[in-house]
Amino acid sequence: MKIGIIGSGIVAQTLGSKLVELGHDVVIGTRDPQKLDDKKNLAGSLREWLSRTGGKGKVVTFREAAAHGDLLVNATSGEISVEALRMAGAGQVGGKVLIDTANVLDFSKGRPPRVGASQDNCLAEQIQSAFPNLKVVKTLNTIGAPVMIDPQSVKGGDHTVFLSGDDGAAKGKVAELLRAFGWTDILDLGDLSTARGPEMYMAMWLRLWGATGTGALNIKVVR
Amino acid sequence: MKIGIIGSGIVAQTLGSKLVELGHDVVIGTRDPQKLDDKKNLAGSLREWLSRTGGKGKVVTFREAAAHGDLLVNATSGEISVEALRMAGAGQVGGKVLIDTANVLDFSKGRPPRVGASQDNCLAEQIQSAFPNLKVVKTLNTIGAPVMIDPQSVKGGDHTVFLSGDDGAAKGKVAELLRAFGWTDILDLGDLSTARGPEMYMAMWLRLWGATGTGALNIKVVR
Repeated sequence: MKIGIIGSGIVAQTLGSKLVELGHDVVIGTRDPQKLDDKKNLAGSLREWLSRTGGKGKVVTFREAAAHGDLLVNATSGEISVEALRMAGAGQVGGKVLIDTANVLDFSKGRPPRVGASQDNCLAEQIQSAFPNLKVVKTLNTIGAPVMIDPQSVKGGDHTVFLSGDDGAAKGKVAELLRAFGWTDILDLGDLSTARGPEMYMAMWLRLWGATGTGALNIKVVR
Repeated sequence: MKIGIIGSGIVAQTLGSKLVELGHDVVIGTRDPQKLDDKKNLAGSLREWLSRTGGKGKVVTFREAAAHGDLLVNATSGEISVEALRMAGAGQVGGKVLIDTANVLDFSKGRPPRVGASQDNCLAEQIQSAFPNLKVVKTLNTIGAPVMIDPQSVKGGDHTVFLSGDDGAAKGKVAELLRAFGWTDILDLGDLSTARGPEMYMAMWLRLWGATGTGALNIKVVR
């Protein structure tokens, strides 16, 4: 499948590598695709990422990434997601499926970062509202990047990933990708308004990380 | 132990019955202790609760409940918790340990209710700030009342309950009670500011309930 990832940080690179490995045609979209050696990126430089994909991945503009993908992934920082999608352009974004993995986090006052999500502030709903034709599916935002693509790395994978979205077929398509990553417990929370749950949960995840000293964790819904 | 519960709803009654069963000297504090037959209460009337305790429990005012308890439990609705504790009186509340089980939920616009917790709105911190000497321990707010006192009722009890609070000894005392309820996986998140995590998680819990159709659920932190 042709996949366009918007964003170039650790989530973008981790998902990008895995999707290449699964045989997809993947591009990463970034603000300035010339800056391949920008070292501010925790995951390493985009040049290193390109090399890890064995030359199969590509780094392009937001607009080119959105045009390329039959499926889109929002892997930007939540604070700039709507802006990045606007730069990608409504025409390119169209009515595609968008996997939204982002969280609104403010690191300006130290760690743990302040969580922007609240009852009246849900990024997935804001993206949906800015691009009404887009089929937004919120998922993976409750999990650290390395675990997203390797659930088995945490206690054999017996824990839960969530889906929220208004379009059932889009959620089915995303669930298929999650299964390819190794996820077995995929819980459909319902329509896109349910994304408030996983977005506000980020405040909990940060404290779980703080208390356990590892981001290699997740929750299992026991029922 | 002498325990004063502030609040008379389903959480107060459920915890109250269990604590009586465990041999504690328990009173429930309510706004008007004469109204034993008030049927607005989902858990049943306080008269029924008194009878379920075999005459061992008592229903008193907020103030009398706070004065009675060596340990206090806040089981009011989060919107009125600070007000109820003010009615109980700073003198009665003093420097005791308070287990805060409450969530700020607004049902005025339908279900699921709107969750009041956010980065800048943490009930446990507001209680602590209003009563600086109180040893506030946030716990159990992430779990439905029947499961609070019977974790084994959900998949044998292999799931997690959380503790947040500034006083280590107070958390130790509360953890002891949780073990008496049957909890085995008790995760200390850290100081009271970490209560933002479990309070914001309530938005997730409501969607888990919606998606699974049961409140008899919880999460296990897998690490």
